[in-house]
Amino acid sequence: MARRNERMKLGAFLYFTGHHLAAWRHPDAQQGTELVDYVELARIAEAAKFDALFLADGVGVRLSDREAASRKAHSGVTPFEPITLLSALAAVTSRIGLVATASTSYSDPYNLARQFASLDRLSNGRAGWNLVTSADPEAALNFGHDAAIRHADRYARAEEFADVVLGLWNSWDDDAFVRDRASGRYFDPEKLRLLNHSGEHFKVRGPLNIPRSPQGHPVLVQAGASQAGMELAARTAELVFAAEVTLEDAVSFYARLKGRLAAYGRRPDELKVLPGVFPVVGRTLAEAEEKFEALQELIQPEVGLDFLSTTIGVDLSAYPLDGPVPDLPETNGNRSRQALLLALARRENLTIRQLYKRVAGARGHWQVVGTPAQVADLLEERFEAYGADGFNVMSPIKPGGLVDFVELVLPELRRRGLFREDYEGATLRQNLGLDHPAARSASRFAAAAE
Amino acid sequence: MARRNERMKLGAFLYFTGHHLAAWRHPDAQQGTELVDYVELARIAEAAKFDALFLADGVGVRLSDREAASRKAHSGVTPFEPITLLSALAAVTSRIGLVATASTSYSDPYNLARQFASLDRLSNGRAGWNLVTSADPEAALNFGHDAAIRHADRYARAEEFADVVLGLWNSWDDDAFVRDRASGRYFDPEKLRLLNHSGEHFKVRGPLNIPRSPQGHPVLVQAGASQAGMELAARTAELVFAAEVTLEDAVSFYARLKGRLAAYGRRPDELKVLPGVFPVVGRTLAEAEEKFEALQELIQPEVGLDFLSTTIGVDLSAYPLDGPVPDLPETNGNRSRQALLLALARRENLTIRQLYKRVAGARGHWQVVGTPAQVADLLEERFEAYGADGFNVMSPIKPGGLVDFVELVLPELRRRGLFREDYEGATLRQNLGLDHPAARSASRFAAAAE
Repeated sequence: MARRNERMKLGAFLYFTGHHLAAWRHPDAQQGTELVDYVELARIAEAAKFDALFLADGVGVRLSDREAASRKAHSGVTPFEPITLLSALAAVTSRIGLVATASTSYSDPYNLARQFASLDRLSNGRAGWNLVTSADPEAALNFGHDAAIRHADRYARAEEFADVVLGLWNSWDDDAFVRDRASGRYFDPEKLRLLNHSGEHFKVRGPLNIPRSPQGHPVLVQAGASQAGMELAARTAELVFAAEVTLEDAVSFYARLKGRLAAYGRRPDELKVLPGVFPVVGRTLAEAEEKFEALQELIQPEVGLDFLSTTIGVDLSAYPLDGPVPDLPETNGNRSRQALLLALARRENLTIRQLYKRVAGARGHWQVVGTPAQVADLLEERFEAYGADGFNVMSPIKPGGLVDFVELVLPELRRRGLFREDYEGATLRQNLGLDHPAARSASRFAAAAE
Repeated sequence: MARRNERMKLGAFLYFTGHHLAAWRHPDAQQGTELVDYVELARIAEAAKFDALFLADGVGVRLSDREAASRKAHSGVTPFEPITLLSALAAVTSRIGLVATASTSYSDPYNLARQFASLDRLSNGRAGWNLVTSADPEAALNFGHDAAIRHADRYARAEEFADVVLGLWNSWDDDAFVRDRASGRYFDPEKLRLLNHSGEHFKVRGPLNIPRSPQGHPVLVQAGASQAGMELAARTAELVFAAEVTLEDAVSFYARLKGRLAAYGRRPDELKVLPGVFPVVGRTLAEAEEKFEALQELIQPEVGLDFLSTTIGVDLSAYPLDGPVPDLPETNGNRSRQALLLALARRENLTIRQLYKRVAGARGHWQVVGTPAQVADLLEERFEAYGADGFNVMSPIKPGGLVDFVELVLPELRRRGLFREDYEGATLRQNLGLDHPAARSASRFAAAAE
């Protein structure tokens, strides 16, 4: 196989107790409830030259089964909100990227554009926004709705939301603020552009009331894998977190997504694809398997079942735990995640209990249990086959899972020339190999806008 | 005069270039565009034992006079958004309070409640939310409106917004999260309460998806001085930033506001009143006056006039600069600020130019130019007369204005026993002498809500 002439990008996807559903019960796991826990992780990941820290998010607590909710750390209650947490980490890090998730379904584009631009400036050009839509019906109840917004409506709003945010991030040229004390000129009014957006969901004049950062604007990240999600990503995203489990699916997704970019006048390398990977690493295979089993044994049955019901979008508690996974209707929720899980159950003929045990750990993501060489082999294979431009590493428990990956797997990847020895640039955009976004030229933009 | 048996509370009100309208042009002033600038100020203020850092905010750029806007640092463009900036400062401070302004007019209460709760947890109980409504008509254009929201409508929304945020902050008891690894119980479902709010502006089920902080919830701060603003403050605020200039007005405002608390079942000491003060301090009076004049000379006429027009809510550019301030209609804007300025112009028979020169520095706030003893005398007088429980100190330029106050005035206040030698408590609430808010009892709240 011809080697790719670039290196992997790596994200450190932090979940506060670790990604394993039962991580919080493990004696070695942090509860992740203190800022110092995250400062420690950020420093580990930065010393290891990860491209970015990544935080997921939701805006509600899943209480439909209150007993199950009260028995897990994954009910939607988080010790910190991502934008504020990453802002805190901006003050104690200097090179690693900071990617926070925020929903287009229940936020306002001006406020969101401004907060991410502020994080981008606080970090001197290291911010990213992971654009998501909110499928969770219980989140909808916190924002004036009686039920979740329909999938198509969520994406229509997300399309317009992305345009408004990108437009606001182009309000000022990079050099608009001259701050010339002698002449009294603070900014150059020729380098300011109003947005004057008026659409179905939003009406926004602009400009954004914050100057640009050293990387122009935050990196736009997405994770949607539905048809609508892929189309939005092909048009606007610069980084995509993928969730495909098999090599075949990963290569197919990568090719399909990159293949759509040309339709929007974009080069394939203007978007990087980073699938999630949940690595359980041991010095021997037996040690890795023991580590994994120690976590699996901590899953409470009501929690495993509730997790599966929530993920798949259908209450499975009426079905026998040791019977087959039933045929299910398409739901309004995260359709790509539902399809992945059903395909897995059919492929391996799993019972409900077997399915939740299979997916509780990586929660539908790609799960790898092995020695450093085995893990590196699989990452290398997927990278070289163009199934990934790198990986979003989901530590099973914190901080041990991240430390294992850094101490055991990264040296192996470096020995093979697959991961950087040091950061290439000063900004997240530079490290990811993405272009600096020019503020749209005044002539082109002003004609449409002013 | 009988001495009060308590000490002053002090806020450090940071404006990025300093509060003087022309501060950014002064050779000694920071531009305040880098996080390190704020880290330095935060450390100075914390070493001096200030109760809190305070940041104002707006959500638009005032471009009605684009030439004037481009000649000042006060057009509404800020280098950072307050919640993100204070989150960054939470990571590099440990004792000082962190109070950010955010508007009820264009935010969502669930998102806002969560971000402030997150800041409160990041800082281990040092956050405050300064609740404002947005009068700026140009901000309205960024949020789907064609003009500013009417004063009465802004306050109707703010009343309901405050209730929703306070309710969400009471979603969980202080000890709801037990995280018992052995039994598998993560939180106690008996210590969770839904909000189930349904009002004219908002419908919010809850609970907030974040646990409480060591101070229960952020301190609720307000600054509105209109009738509606004072009523909302009397009902819900714990700290009020006042803007009265004269001793007489300060004492009157203080008495009126504190006098309303009983109607809401509150004690007078459950709300602290901190007027703004703009101190220009010199070792001699001549030195103080020289410092002030050096700033005054930097005010550009178009900027001074535009500042006055914006603050007063009426375009004054059609009137002679050296003629009298005309009679003006009541506007939809910040009525209390308009009334204060007009009263000043009438009282001293000022021309438009004289008025903008008088208010450009402190921008309508109380301006004190003098020696350390003179400044301390005035603060002591106002404190002992119950015109203030302390002061929100508005440095004319950064960092020099804050350093002057810390090095020259604070020793004088301490010598007189008027300000603390060290922090009394670990949280903002403890240092301000405010009660820990009990999450409402399950029986009382659940009956109404579930």
